[in-house]
Formats: sequence, structure tokens, C-alpha cells
Amino acid sequence: MMQKTKFNAAILIIGNEILSGRTQDTNTSTIAQWLNSIGVKVNEVRVIPDIESTIIETVNHLRKVNNYVFTTGGIGPTHDDITAQSISKAFNLNYEIHKKAFKILEAYYKPGEFNEGRQKMVWMPENANLILNPTSGAPGFYVENVFCLPGVPSILKSMLGGLKNEIVGGDPILSQTISLRTVESEIANSLTKVQDKNQDVEIGSYPFFQAGKLGVSIVIRSEIQSNIDRCSEQILNFVNEMKIEIVER
Amino acid sequence: MMQKTKFNAAILIIGNEILSGRTQDTNTSTIAQWLNSIGVKVNEVRVIPDIESTIIETVNHLRKVNNYVFTTGGIGPTHDDITAQSISKAFNLNYEIHKKAFKILEAYYKPGEFNEGRQKMVWMPENANLILNPTSGAPGFYVENVFCLPGVPSILKSMLGGLKNEIVGGDPILSQTISLRTVESEIANSLTKVQDKNQDVEIGSYPFFQAGKLGVSIVIRSEIQSNIDRCSEQILNFVNEMKIEIVER
Repeated sequence: MMQKTKFNAAILIIGNEILSGRTQDTNTSTIAQWLNSIGVKVNEVRVIPDIESTIIETVNHLRKVNNYVFTTGGIGPTHDDITAQSISKAFNLNYEIHKKAFKILEAYYKPGEFNEGRQKMVWMPENANLILNPTSGAPGFYVENVFCLPGVPSILKSMLGGLKNEIVGGDPILSQTISLRTVESEIANSLTKVQDKNQDVEIGSYPFFQAGKLGVSIVIRSEIQSNIDRCSEQILNFVNEMKIEIVER
Repeated sequence: MMQKTKFNAAILIIGNEILSGRTQDTNTSTIAQWLNSIGVKVNEVRVIPDIESTIIETVNHLRKVNNYVFTTGGIGPTHDDITAQSISKAFNLNYEIHKKAFKILEAYYKPGEFNEGRQKMVWMPENANLILNPTSGAPGFYVENVFCLPGVPSILKSMLGGLKNEIVGGDPILSQTISLRTVESEIANSLTKVQDKNQDVEIGSYPFFQAGKLGVSIVIRSEIQSNIDRCSEQILNFVNEMKIEIVER
């Protein structure tokens, strides 16, 4: 069977507020789930501070070893928003006013409200492609395979839909979860046997506590539904044999 | 004034479930806040898959460029838990039964319950130092400056307290938040001026939506309270001049 081309991505979270623990990142999960749905796998995530040299170095590494890089954060109007200028330097491009972005924001704001602070948001790498923002006007942008999105989760979420046609992916990455009333150590051996027999699927095992009770979620992932089904059947076989309660499947 | 030694750390989240977006990481925020309280700054966070070569390579890079590395995940009993064996290889140490960990778990479980699956959790790099687990028995461990913790947030949280004496840090990193009823672009220029005058503090600006209303949180961070106070005063000066409503401080 021919191996399909796999597409992969890195997510780069830019922002001191995540590193300090003040803000809980939720964008990774949003972007990863969306990418999986269009057949792109996330290889790694990095969180880095608002430091220009760090952004440049990290972007230049990640864009070479991944099909796509998604950055979040640092494209607003304040002094700590340095993503656009850092990306310009990473690509050796001029950092300049993007005419189309300027027109979009000029039309978006009431007359007189498109002030100096807001105008900072139309400074981008030259000839950057815009990523439209249906929530708050200010567009994101992409250069080659590096896509720059804002840090505010609701705005980021609203911008992903418009990106679908810009990304070439593979078959969606499918998953099935089987949640059991057991502990990992009880099923570890049986699960290892199933994973050994099914090298073409990814099987994860995750303990949970819910309503005061312990359980384990088994997650099966593959691009091919029949592989998941085969694997799921083998898991349910040992689960039934061991008389383990199924909480959810 | 003599510059105090700064201590920094990297957090390494190991687990396919975070990269797939299925699970939202919360351990970064827990570890980062705890580290800040003992004077250690988080320089970067990485999320990587359960792949041995990736874990080895990443750990060996991070431990050289940071004072501390904290890993989460992959120390349970199932086939996808490969952190302990990967760390052993990263340090060229034998992966073997840790006698003290064995005794701890043998005493923790009822007779007959310390089965093969559970015994996997006492395999560690030789001579690893244990990190005690007051929640569920199975200890974490550390080798030199690499501290390996579990992925389950409540268990991880319960293990940090016991680590305090193993970590040498600096002065706690303090912070103050001033939340304003404004938008970033209105205060961008004034805030830049304050940051320019106060290079010894880190000022972040974070838009928020709360109860349907827009706002901006300004976060001031430093090890020195008087620096925060000076900066805070300068911010409140322009806030008052501009008649911006203070939501919280």
C-alpha cells in the first residue's frame, strides 16, 4: 500500500503571559483540533517569550522542519507586540505598512478612530498574505508557510475558517475514545499487545478522575477508519473478557 | 547595584494527547506559577510526542541551556509511557528497578495488587532521586537538573511542594495587574513610554472580554517590589489623566 504524504505543523505560542503561568493557553488545542480535521498533524508546540531574537531563531528553525508553522500572539498594538517585525526579520523582508490591511482597518473604524496605536497593526512583512478577521477587524498574515494569528482565543478561532483553502492537508486524522472504569496498570499488558499488533494506529492511554471515580480513556487515532475499528474491536474483546465496565465509547 | 544570579527553567510536556488537541495542558501554568514563587523564571515550554528519540534529543538540549528542566507525562504503567527509559538513555544511565521506589509501592498497594503493570512504574534511571507522590504513591524522579513529573494535573500539583528544597532559586518574581476599561490602542503610546523609562520591569498588555465588555489588563513583573510600585504609579498617572475607568488593581 502506498504511504500517503503526511502533512505536519508546529505551533508557536509567543507571549510572556503564558510563560509566567498567568494565562492558560487554549489556542494549542483549538489549532491542533482544526489541523487534525484537515489532515495536518501537530509535531510540536513551543512557547517562547516576547524577545525578538528568540522569535526569529525559533521561527527560522520550525519553518524548515515543518510543512506549516502557526504563531499566536504579539500582533496587537502595544509595545510587547513584536511578532510582525520579528517575522519580517526572520524572512529578511521589509517591515512596512500593508496597503490592503490599512484599507480594511480604515473602513472598519469610525472616522477619526483609526489612530496611531491602531495603525501599528497594519505594519507587516512586505507582501504578506492577509488572514481575515471577522471578529475585530485587524487581520493576521502569512509569509510562505508561517501563519501569524492573534493571541485572543475567540478572535483566533474566528479566523481559522477562512484559512482552510490556504492549507494543503491530507485525510482527516480520526479518533475514537473508549473510557473504562479501571486503572491503567490493570490493562497495561493487554493494551500493549493490541498496540504491538496495530503499528499503523496510535493508541494513547489517559487516566482520569471524574465525579470522584477513577477511570482510563483509551484513544485510538488514525487516518483510516477501518484501522480504528479493528483496533477498537480488539480492545473491547479484552475489556469484555476482563469484565471491565465501559463508561463511554 | 550587583545583578543577582537569575535562575531559569524549561518545561517539557510529553504527550500525544496535548498535540492532538484532545487534552488541554494545564500543568504549564501550575509549574510556572510555582517556579515564579521560588524565583525561577520559565524561559520556554515545549510539547513533544511520545517518541523516544525526540524526548532524548529535546531533554539533552534543554538541560544544557537551562538551570532546570521539568518534564510532565509518560511515567505511568502503559505502553505509551516512555519518559523514564528515554531519560535514562539521555543521560547514558541504566534503566532499572529503583529499590526505594519498589519498597514505596509495595507498601502502598494491598498484598497481591502490586502487579506487573504497576511494577513498570519503579523502573527508572539508575540512582535517580525520587520525588514523592502524596496522592497516588508512584514517585516521580530527578536526574541532575531534570525533574520528571506525571501528567495528571492533580497528582503533579501535589508533588511540587516536596520539591521546594531541591530547587535553588532567586527572589520570588512578583507581579501586579491593573485592569482597565479601555482598548489596547488607546493606551499603547503611553504604555510604551512607561516601559521605555522602566527597563528593569516587564510590562505586558492583555486584552480581555468579560461579561460582554472589552478591557485591557496591564501586568507588571519584577523581583523588586519598589520597581513595580514606581511603574504602577506612572501607569495610574496616565490612566487618571485620560479618565480611563479602573476595573481592578
